[in-house]
Formats: sequence, structure tokens, C-alpha cells
Amino acid sequence: MRYLDMTKEQLEAEYELQKKNWQAIKDQNLKLDMSRGKPEKGQLDLSLDMLCVLKNDVDCQNRDGFDTRNYGLPTGIPELKEIFAEILGVEKDEILTGGNSSLNMMYNIIADGMLLGFAESEKPWCRYDKIKFLCPAPGYDRHFSICQHLGIEMIPVPMLETGPDMNLIEKLAGEDETIKGIWCVPKYSNPTGITFSDETVRRFAAMKTKAPDFKIFWDNAYLIHDLYDEADSLLNLLDEAKKCGTQDRVFEFCSTSKVTLAGGGVCFVASSKANIERLAKQLSMEGLGYDKVNQLRHYRFFRDKEGVYAIMKKHAAILRPKFEAVIREFEAGMGDAGIAHWHTPHGGYFISLDVMENTAKRTWELAHEAGVTLTNVGATFPYGKDPKNENLRIAPSNVKLEDVGTIAKYVCVCAKLAALEKLLQKA
Amino acid sequence: MRYLDMTKEQLEAEYELQKKNWQAIKDQNLKLDMSRGKPEKGQLDLSLDMLCVLKNDVDCQNRDGFDTRNYGLPTGIPELKEIFAEILGVEKDEILTGGNSSLNMMYNIIADGMLLGFAESEKPWCRYDKIKFLCPAPGYDRHFSICQHLGIEMIPVPMLETGPDMNLIEKLAGEDETIKGIWCVPKYSNPTGITFSDETVRRFAAMKTKAPDFKIFWDNAYLIHDLYDEADSLLNLLDEAKKCGTQDRVFEFCSTSKVTLAGGGVCFVASSKANIERLAKQLSMEGLGYDKVNQLRHYRFFRDKEGVYAIMKKHAAILRPKFEAVIREFEAGMGDAGIAHWHTPHGGYFISLDVMENTAKRTWELAHEAGVTLTNVGATFPYGKDPKNENLRIAPSNVKLEDVGTIAKYVCVCAKLAALEKLLQKA
Repeated sequence: MRYLDMTKEQLEAEYELQKKNWQAIKDQNLKLDMSRGKPEKGQLDLSLDMLCVLKNDVDCQNRDGFDTRNYGLPTGIPELKEIFAEILGVEKDEILTGGNSSLNMMYNIIADGMLLGFAESEKPWCRYDKIKFLCPAPGYDRHFSICQHLGIEMIPVPMLETGPDMNLIEKLAGEDETIKGIWCVPKYSNPTGITFSDETVRRFAAMKTKAPDFKIFWDNAYLIHDLYDEADSLLNLLDEAKKCGTQDRVFEFCSTSKVTLAGGGVCFVASSKANIERLAKQLSMEGLGYDKVNQLRHYRFFRDKEGVYAIMKKHAAILRPKFEAVIREFEAGMGDAGIAHWHTPHGGYFISLDVMENTAKRTWELAHEAGVTLTNVGATFPYGKDPKNENLRIAPSNVKLEDVGTIAKYVCVCAKLAALEKLLQKA
Repeated sequence: MRYLDMTKEQLEAEYELQKKNWQAIKDQNLKLDMSRGKPEKGQLDLSLDMLCVLKNDVDCQNRDGFDTRNYGLPTGIPELKEIFAEILGVEKDEILTGGNSSLNMMYNIIADGMLLGFAESEKPWCRYDKIKFLCPAPGYDRHFSICQHLGIEMIPVPMLETGPDMNLIEKLAGEDETIKGIWCVPKYSNPTGITFSDETVRRFAAMKTKAPDFKIFWDNAYLIHDLYDEADSLLNLLDEAKKCGTQDRVFEFCSTSKVTLAGGGVCFVASSKANIERLAKQLSMEGLGYDKVNQLRHYRFFRDKEGVYAIMKKHAAILRPKFEAVIREFEAGMGDAGIAHWHTPHGGYFISLDVMENTAKRTWELAHEAGVTLTNVGATFPYGKDPKNENLRIAPSNVKLEDVGTIAKYVCVCAKLAALEKLLQKA
């Protein structure tokens, strides 16, 4: 029965029941953590063969005989770039290899924008009193941290089932010259799990922006992180942008952090040929290139695109039952109460749970008291503020399968108890 | 006989001789390159055992059982930090591990200064119309590139036998609030090969600066890169600075780029505890930490400080005969002519050759025409301009030992021919 349809007496009875359920969890003195989207050990072990794939000096030469142990090839070894150019659906001169953190590459590009501006910029972004970024929310907390770190004002944009609210984005970006960029996780969005619709992608490519140097930070972190054979499909933004002549506004990112090693992967940035050329020049001023031995290690381990997809299937086999356990428990535990909704993602790393308005923080507290750590409420919003206090990010990857369902069940109890407290206050 | 003491007839005869020598070199259609300070293959092979030192999942755990393949430990695994803290002579909380490029870490810190300022800054450096760096010259071209890239005005400071001209540095930094930093390669300086005297280091620690946020970028790239058992000794700047309360002005850097792999090493930054804490926080906003698998690979390969020094002895055994061949040929070829001088370094990667004023470019051209590529003249000076047109950077590491002496001999011929052309113009 839906809580909203209950009488005061029914609510009170249900409150007593859930309070008892919650106390029973608490009495177990658990210590469970579902706060971070880290891969589990079994996923890291999928790349064990990569560790020693380069054994000697000859192994360290790339296909052209270049010794990856020495200086040179600052944009990355071509054979690995080719694999990821194919996966991203871009040309060989539209991609560049970075270090072990795509987030760091995003930061670098924004920092370059602040310090130097882009080709189309009137002036470096740091020469404005204030610049702004559009922030589809809930979103990835580390994107928002970058803005906050650099003093870039964040304008939240609601996330819909089709992606961020494009009407609002077109309006805002079309009017305000100081809006310089937007963060997107277009496939299996962090945390809502949705994939942007074709129309959303086309509108990103076609939209007019007041700022000539408006940039889309297209963090395609989960591009190949499908849980099922039937994957969500995402339109190629760079292709669409080329049709509109807006390819210079696109910076697309991906990495092997959740393919091989979370701390020891390789990242890539794709953009227009002109942007990649400019970026390569800038990066060559800012350091001595990235670790090409690790690039070659990845290439030898993957061999080709199919090798990458083969590993992703193994990741899916580990992650899928965890996601399904969460969804199953949510449906069993909260399907009837009508106090929460969630999207069932087909990939990525997160399930986004919207509990009853104004009860997310209380749900988090109740879970915490009962020994279950969830991602901080608000983390998924600019400035850490969830305006409706309703969103919880569920990160099942680094929890043991046998615990995932249990935690999800406990989250239901906490969400229900928090809702009942609120409803009884009003009743 | 010194060229300056020769009669016109003697100069003409010598010119004919050197011209013939030069032509004989040219006729060989050589293609020799001594332009870059890259390690040779034999040096890279010294770390072959590092490639496969981590073989399985258990190997990937650090001493505390942390899985280096996953996210976490953003300032680096402690066991490797400890080794390099000991080598640098700093405390464990005065060091932080970076990625594969110390140059990139230097850039990051300056970029952070531009965008955010330092703890003592009145405002971020980018909020000034212009800031300036002192640039001891000749120096490392990539330091100067960073300044040029960021629009930081470079003020050249002459290099003396004891280090940069401290009288000038104290005067300039003491007067001008917009002078925010200085570049130093204090040991086996790039390219002059000298090591800063104790007095120079003490004056760096003690000097008054007009800018409260003046920073010393102490690029200790060759800290352990001795060619002989009897090494140059360098005073510990951070220690000296602590005595003066100026430890927050010091950022010291080193890396394993020329210990293990030039493209796949690990870098370190040392500074005051307060600076390291602040930097760690900033870096945590700017990325997801550096490759800890590679850090652990280094640790397991080195085992301890002695392991690092043992490898450096093997590097010295490869490099020493090359340096000695250059010096031997310079002495034989130019000792009498009195047209050039050079420092005989006890470590590092370079020999700095000062030819007769206004003949470095011509020497370079003559060498180039004869098939020998040297580092571009001016590269070692701010804005690529060697005001006296006299400095050539000799980089023998990546040349085969049997070619090093030959190239040095040819350089002598070119330097003499260029000098003779100039002297005959005047005669």
C-alpha cells in the first residue's frame, strides 16, 4: 500500500514495523560501505595478464621500433590510439593519449582555458570576473569539484530521462556569454544511469551559444561499460557536431580506469583535429608526455578492439548480478510504498535512488547509524547541495555480491523509516 | 698557439687547414645527433628487472595490504616516498609522489599559482598584469618554455662557477613584488654542469624577497646522477630554509626519469609540510592521483636507498667514458687555440661549451652542414636568445661511445673554423 494513501493509524503501525526492522539491522553491528564507485578486486584481476606483458627490451618497442621507455611520441603510441579512436568513432588525428586520469585531462583543458583561452576565445577565462558552467544534476561530484576549485560558478540543470533539460541549456547558453561550458556523462550517466537520447545529442551539436568558446566536456566514462548485450546506444557527438561545424566545442573523454586498473590505466581525449593539434602543443609545454610503457602494456594486453570488448563482457558478468540484486530489493522493499523511484541502468557504475523529498539526508543518517555507509547526500549536486534532499547514489561495484542485496534491503528500510517520520510529522 | 695571438697570415693558414678538416668530415656524409639529453638504450636496460617485478594480485599490494591497482593513496605509496625522502633529506610529510614527469609537476604548481595563488599570495598570479621569473642562464630550455607558455616574463641571470649571480638575484627579488619565482638546477646544472656553492644555497634560504609569495623551483634533476665516487656536494636547501623560516618558498623536485625509465618513471616534490598538505589538497581536486602500480614497481625494484644508488653507479659507468671522451677531445682540439671554455662536470647530463663570442650559431651551422646535429643555439636561454651567441649544449648520453669522441672532435673543428671566419673578417 502506498504510504500516501495510509491513514495515520496505518502509518503509525508501519512506522513501528520499520523501526523494529531498522533496530534489527543496527543490532548486527555491521560495517558495510557502498559509497564509492571503485571496481572490486575480481575486476582488477581481469587484467592480471597485463602486468607482465612486457618482459624485456624488445617487448618495449612499439610496432615502429620506437623504444617506449625513452622520451618521445608525446601524443601516445599510435597502435593504442587507433584502438580507442575506433571505439570512440573518431579519426586518428582526432585523439590524444593522456596519463592515468581522464579527470586530470579534463582539469588540464579547463585550466588551459582559464590561463590561455581557446582558439576562439576573446581572452583567457581567468580574465573574466566570473565564468559559469552548466552542471546537469545529479551528476559526477568530481566534475563539480573542479569548478569549485577554480571558482567557476555552477548552474544546475535538471536531468531528465532523455538527458539534461535541453530547453534550459539552449536558453542559458544562448543568452549568457560567460557560460563557457557544460559537464556531461552521456552514457549510463553518473549517477542517474540514463543515456542521452539522439535528439539530446543533436541539440548539443546544433545549439547556438552566446560564447564563441563554449565547450562541452563529454565524459564518456561508461562508453563501453554495458551490463547487457543489448546496450544503450549513444549518438556520436563529434560526428553530429561536424555536420553543424561545431566540432571545436567538443572535448570527449574516456579511459581504461574501469577496463584495466583504476589507478594504473590510460586515458584519451577526442576532439576536432584543430583542438587536438592545439592541445598537443600545449601539453608539450606542460610536461614531457605520458607513460608510453603503460600504453604499450595496454596495447599488448588488448591486441585490438575486440580484446577490449572481451574484457568488458567479463566486467559485466561481475557487475550485472550486483545491479540486479539492488533493483530486485528496491522493487521488493519499496515498490508498494510509493516513496521512491529509481532508474534501472543498462550499464555504468551507479544506481540513482530518489527517495521521498526532504528525506535523503535522514535516510543516509539512519543507514549510517545502522552501519551502512552510502555516498554523502548532496555529493552529486553542485556545491554539495541537493535542493530537494532526495537523491542517493548507490555504488554496488566494490561490495561483495552476497552483501549487495542485503545493503539494498537495508536502504529500503531506512528510506521507508525516514519517509514515515516525515509523514507522521505532517499527519 | 692562441688564435688571438696569430698574425693574419697564420690565421689564413689555420683557416685553410680547418676548412680542409671540415670538408673531410662533410665528405663522410655523416648523420650524428648529439642534441638531446636522453638516456641510451643500455641505461634503460638497467631497469629491465622492474618490468615484471609485479606478477600477480598479491604482488600489487603495498606493505600495508593496499591494492595499488585501485583508487586511493593520492600522495603515493609510503614505502617509495620514504626512500626518496631519505635521498632528498626531507621528512615523510614533506614529500609527495607525482606521475612520470617532474616537469609536469613544476608546471602544475606554477599553474596553481597563476589560478589560485599560494598561501601567502595577495591574489592569484594571473590577476597581475605581468609577473616575472628569474632565469639563471644558460639553463634548462623546458623551464623557460613553461614561462613563455604562461606569459611569465623571464629575467636572465648570469650563471657563475658558484651558481647564479646571487648579488643580482637578491637585488632584483628584493625590489620587485612582481618577481614571483626562480628556476634552479642546483646540482650538475643543466647545462653548465656546476653545483651551487654552500654560500649560494644559504643566500637562497636567507634572502629577503619583496613578494611574500616568491617561490624557488629547485629542480634537483641530477641529485644522484654522479659520474664519480667523489661527488659534488650540495647543501640541503629545505634545511637551510627552515633555519630562516623560509621553507614555504622552496619547491624541490626529482624523478626517476634518468634512474629507471625516461618515459615511465615516477617524480617527487618536496617542500614544507604546509605546502605539501596544500598541494595534496589541490591535486586531489585536479585528478584521481597518480599511477601507484608503477610506484610499487619502482619500490620493489629498488628495495631501498642503496638499491637506487647501486643503479646510479651503473649509469655512471656508461656515461663517464662519454663525458671523458668529450673533455679529452675538447682539450686536444681547442686547448691551445684559446677560443673556447667549458666546465668539466662531475655528474648530470650535459657539458656546456662556450665558443668564441658571436660564433655559436655559425659553429652549429657548420656542424649541421657536416652531418652533426647539436642542440639549437639559444635553446638554453630565455626566449631562445643567447645574448653572446656563444653557448653550445653538448649532450653525449644518447650517442654511442665510439661516436662521442668523434663528434666532439668535429665540434672542435667547427668551433675553430667559425672563430677563424670571424677573426679574419676583423683582420
